Amino acid sequence: MKTLIIVGHPTPDSSATQQFLKAAVQDLSGVKWHELASVKGNFVANEERQLLQKSSRVVLQFPLYWYNVPDLLKRWQDQVFTDINQVSLAGKELGIVVNVGKAVQEFRLGGTVGFSLSGLLSPLAAWAKHFQMKLLPLFVIDRFEYQNLKQQQQLLIAYQQFLELPQPVTFAAQEAWFLDKLKAKVDLASGRQRQQLELIMQQLQEKTTKLADLQAVLRPIRKDDQIHGN
Amino acid sequence: MKTLIIVGHPTPDSSATQQFLKAAVQDLSGVKWHELASVKGNFVANEERQLLQKSSRVVLQFPLYWYNVPDLLKRWQDQVFTDINQVSLAGKELGIVVNVGKAVQEFRLGGTVGFSLSGLLSPLAAWAKHFQMKLLPLFVIDRFEYQNLKQQQQLLIAYQQFLELPQPVTFAAQEAWFLDKLKAKVDLASGRQRQQLELIMQQLQEKTTKLADLQAVLRPIRKDDQIHGN
Repeated sequence: MKTLIIVGHPTPDSSATQQFLKAAVQDLSGVKWHELASVKGNFVANEERQLLQKSSRVVLQFPLYWYNVPDLLKRWQDQVFTDINQVSLAGKELGIVVNVGKAVQEFRLGGTVGFSLSGLLSPLAAWAKHFQMKLLPLFVIDRFEYQNLKQQQQLLIAYQQFLELPQPVTFAAQEAWFLDKLKAKVDLASGRQRQQLELIMQQLQEKTTKLADLQAVLRPIRKDDQIHGN
Repeated sequence: MKTLIIVGHPTPDSSATQQFLKAAVQDLSGVKWHELASVKGNFVANEERQLLQKSSRVVLQFPLYWYNVPDLLKRWQDQVFTDINQVSLAGKELGIVVNVGKAVQEFRLGGTVGFSLSGLLSPLAAWAKHFQMKLLPLFVIDRFEYQNLKQQQQLLIAYQQFLELPQPVTFAAQEAWFLDKLKAKVDLASGRQRQQLELIMQQLQEKTTKLADLQAVLRPIRKDDQIHGN
């Protein structure tokens, strides 16, 4: 699977959020980072379309400006998709990574914004529907600048998984993904660091096995519950 | 009242719809037609803000591109409203005049678009809410190029009334508006044409009087109905 990230921030170099996400993508071999700001003036529609054709998952990534996509991303849409017969996106996945400067809770009914993010971004859903793309669950980054280190670490993992894992994401796939990443780190490490990482990996694998056992016990109970349950 | 029309079409000269609407505005003294395409490159934010300050009704007028505002209108929003403290729009009215290339009925649930125009344009509603503007009912132009002469005449009147009449619009206000316009035409006419227009005006006034009489009769009946009714 190839993931293409269309970065719609007009000045990504000045954005802490975009720089953080860019760093998160460095290690990911199947992911292409494509900044629209680098071809700001006029897009070469054909080049943009070729990039899209090569990808199986397209991610539109942008900050919410005036409750909508930034001008730059809209320009890309308006300029690249003029003759819609020139591009076939059917069956590809469309991900949306949006970061907001207002607390996410303000977007609910009665909040200071009062319009849901899913509603505000529905033009992109209509766009995905038009091209018969499969829309992935919205990925929202809630005020990156207020996040502490732990929240940022969680964001990093969630973001990488959003880019790499097949959808819909299962817990088992998340676990396997984590062990894979850890194994790659172990292979690169040496000495004391390697010993520590191997210990962590061993513990994680043991917990994974325990969890699998527990799930095996739970499954018949849940089945029983479904038959007799309320 | 002063109405400012922000024309967000990137090439209004090539748009039959925009040219039709532009002609409809020629006679209206309190309405300013402002094409964003004329200052395409970079907006002088201060000049744009001053135009807004002078108006009591702001109308955003644009074709729907990819289920959203055109790039040009978004650029205007992103460039002019950077420092939101520099502009006060509180209490002003915001009108939206949108023309669509797909049949309006396709925007309902289960239609080929499947997303409502009110939903797709909710970023503008959130924007209006942000600036404490009063949002007027959405004015939709359904595929202008398919409209026959009669439909275009109806559109012309509805559009002019949307720009000029106090909101919410009443039937009485629409009648008075129509008589005013007719009177202005009579004053300019002469000879046989003037006679004909005077006759039309006379008939319209008679009908208006009859209608007022009928409403006077209906009012107590409706009142009675409200008291005793189901």
